[in-house]
Amino acid sequence: MKNFRPNCFFAQICAFTLIVVFTLHVKLSAQTTQNGADAAFIRKIYDQALTDGRCYPWLEHLCLNIGHRLSGSVGAAQAVQWTRSMLDTLGLDSVWLQPVMVPHWVRGEAEQVRVVGSKKHGTFTLSALALGGSVGTPAQGISAEVVEVKSWEELDNLGERAIRGKIIFYNRPMDATKIRTFEAYGGAVDQRVHGASRAAKYGAVGVLVRSMSLRLDDFPHTGTLLYDSTHALLPAVAISTLAAEKLSQVLKEEGKALVSMKMNCKMLPEVLSYNVVGEIRGSERPNDIIVVGGHLDSWDAGHGAHDDGAGCTQSMDVLRILKQLGYRPRHTIRCVLFMNEENGLRGGKKYAEEAARKGEFHLAAIESDAGGFTPRGFSFEGDESVFGKFFEKISAYQNLLEPYGLKFTKGGSGADISPLKSMKGLLSGYQPDSQRYFDLHHTADDTFDKVNKRELELGAASMAALVYLLDKYGL
Amino acid sequence: MKNFRPNCFFAQICAFTLIVVFTLHVKLSAQTTQNGADAAFIRKIYDQALTDGRCYPWLEHLCLNIGHRLSGSVGAAQAVQWTRSMLDTLGLDSVWLQPVMVPHWVRGEAEQVRVVGSKKHGTFTLSALALGGSVGTPAQGISAEVVEVKSWEELDNLGERAIRGKIIFYNRPMDATKIRTFEAYGGAVDQRVHGASRAAKYGAVGVLVRSMSLRLDDFPHTGTLLYDSTHALLPAVAISTLAAEKLSQVLKEEGKALVSMKMNCKMLPEVLSYNVVGEIRGSERPNDIIVVGGHLDSWDAGHGAHDDGAGCTQSMDVLRILKQLGYRPRHTIRCVLFMNEENGLRGGKKYAEEAARKGEFHLAAIESDAGGFTPRGFSFEGDESVFGKFFEKISAYQNLLEPYGLKFTKGGSGADISPLKSMKGLLSGYQPDSQRYFDLHHTADDTFDKVNKRELELGAASMAALVYLLDKYGL
Repeated sequence: MKNFRPNCFFAQICAFTLIVVFTLHVKLSAQTTQNGADAAFIRKIYDQALTDGRCYPWLEHLCLNIGHRLSGSVGAAQAVQWTRSMLDTLGLDSVWLQPVMVPHWVRGEAEQVRVVGSKKHGTFTLSALALGGSVGTPAQGISAEVVEVKSWEELDNLGERAIRGKIIFYNRPMDATKIRTFEAYGGAVDQRVHGASRAAKYGAVGVLVRSMSLRLDDFPHTGTLLYDSTHALLPAVAISTLAAEKLSQVLKEEGKALVSMKMNCKMLPEVLSYNVVGEIRGSERPNDIIVVGGHLDSWDAGHGAHDDGAGCTQSMDVLRILKQLGYRPRHTIRCVLFMNEENGLRGGKKYAEEAARKGEFHLAAIESDAGGFTPRGFSFEGDESVFGKFFEKISAYQNLLEPYGLKFTKGGSGADISPLKSMKGLLSGYQPDSQRYFDLHHTADDTFDKVNKRELELGAASMAALVYLLDKYGL
Repeated sequence: MKNFRPNCFFAQICAFTLIVVFTLHVKLSAQTTQNGADAAFIRKIYDQALTDGRCYPWLEHLCLNIGHRLSGSVGAAQAVQWTRSMLDTLGLDSVWLQPVMVPHWVRGEAEQVRVVGSKKHGTFTLSALALGGSVGTPAQGISAEVVEVKSWEELDNLGERAIRGKIIFYNRPMDATKIRTFEAYGGAVDQRVHGASRAAKYGAVGVLVRSMSLRLDDFPHTGTLLYDSTHALLPAVAISTLAAEKLSQVLKEEGKALVSMKMNCKMLPEVLSYNVVGEIRGSERPNDIIVVGGHLDSWDAGHGAHDDGAGCTQSMDVLRILKQLGYRPRHTIRCVLFMNEENGLRGGKKYAEEAARKGEFHLAAIESDAGGFTPRGFSFEGDESVFGKFFEKISAYQNLLEPYGLKFTKGGSGADISPLKSMKGLLSGYQPDSQRYFDLHHTADDTFDKVNKRELELGAASMAALVYLLDKYGL
């Protein structure tokens, strides 16, 4: 350093650079040591999950012994009681049910949708599932000509003259070129959510929606719709992608198609249900909460295995794994199984309301609601006043999760935890591989056998590892 | 720069640093521009694969119309002719069959393995598949007491006194804590490969091997064994993991177990078969080759869908995609469907021999033989005299593949391309997600329905993207 001259401007910059480099080096070394202990604990978490995990047998019970669990159904009530009883076995500090009133929509007798009197194909059935929340048809059904559209613009251009008295058939497919299938879903699901009311505006009498799927098969995919109450409430039904292709072909070949729809679904009075909650109390900051959760309700087809039995049993397993390893958290770690994500989000809203009422600060919330597939990472979001700082902080330990194939990205988290956003904590969505999710989503094919044991366990371990890091380093 | 003083040592370092930083900046900017064009072309590759891919229908035909394809079988011969005819439709510069003599092992009538006269369980069948290459038993079968071992040390400690006249039962499970399942496989497959001869050394009469699987189910997993001809050739059979658990339980509860084995497998004279090759001739360096391939043979159970119908049809699709996009490669791009990976590697050896004879330099070879699952990356290896330089070079464009979920790592490539290593090019193994692979590997359950269309297509696109980058930038 003997050549150092303070009057040399260049040398000043240089000295500053060296100091920065040196400081960074010291910081990195300290981090490496710390990382060693963290890496070892995270390794234990994965070992626990992969050799002694419970999420898979729990999911098996939920799927095969209870089955689907639409809000207000017997299945939902059984799932509440059973998951509570499982949490009770884990030696947590408390387990409770959080009451919440939920909508009670029922499908009734299976819907029937038919193309009637096609010149070339005669009369044939379209595989269909009424959209959740849809009104039914009159008992005798409805019957009308079909108008196919692929965009709102097309619908608006057709206008009342072409649409009045018709059944609108929304047939814009999901975009197969999107690498993350959730993006493709986001680009098509507006048809399912808003299609009924937008068609009602022009005097349509019913709605068919091409299923939200990238696969050509005969499973119809249900899902919720939202009615705009300024328009008539039209019966709306999802048809399988193969049925959509066939109907479109008939329209192309014959210029028109007559469809009959008979749907027996209806909304009943609201029902009392529950979020299921279990927690390990924090030793230092018990009123700062880290939530890990999924939603306990499912659509009324299949087992709701990937959506979202997987997320629920993984979340339960996070607490079990941490208990099993004797981990004493600084913050309170809470598993929440939210009720009614699918058709109302009442559980998520109620949970955030109660948290605010009790003055609980939610440091972080992680939701697993993208299936039980192989782990790829976590996406993070938060109030913009704090998110940048948070993301920087957590990015410092992303390297600890890389050996497990995980990557941190900025992006959406989960529907149930979204009402917590205003609390200015960190929100995260567990991101499994997305390629197979929409093959099964909201169908009779979302069954237990589609879940791979190791993939599910790796997800639980990944969530436990993130919870551990958030608990240890705060935000 | 007016404060710059050459007599200031610090400032000299500093100036140098700035120059380096500036140069790096210019280089990175140039790279960014270049990357823009590359990113656009790679995007086209994925769009092609995801909207117009052929690998999935090709695989469907290979699996459902031809089926499994063990070397020397009718299926293998049909697969050669059919894949050749498909390559012939692609407008490649040449397509040919490369003759190679292959072993012809046949299973014969289904093997029968039974536990006889257990006190608690009576006589019952163990789900079993003879190991590929195993000798059969005498026509009347063999029957002997079973000795269970989990390590070579245990076997050696037992020695001849305990082993002579017995059937050795290798029951060391794959290690569930390994995140990449191939590591777990690597830690257990020595039992299958070397178990027969190592037991023969101590006078055993037969061998049972716990299936190479992390799943508890009733599918036996076959696979090749290697005999050391200085010892007797024992009949050796894989039993399902559930069968292994049950046999182990009988041994634990009853202290002994009598097993009868009847196997009808045998080796027939060698048969003429073929590697199937197609190429697009390079416009600048036609004698420098980039190979992309998989192996066309499979075990004689299931469809050989993931192993390795997937890799073959993906490799074929790489050439089709590049042709479809009008890409004119600088180097020759060749798709090779290797024969006899499973029990001899004759195709891979013959291919390398012929390449050397013709003086073809193999710049790079990519093998897809780890299943048709969702892409995670590529692993690379090469002769150590050149590998460091190569890996640095390709790492510069890893960022172009990150949006597709791909990562570059150092590691093994593929069995068929391994004989090319001495040519000092770059070898790469396509790395799909590994969690489900060993659930199906070498079983009757490796069927077409286990392959996801998008996952397969994404793999083909990933391989095509890497081929494009290797072709464009060389090594």
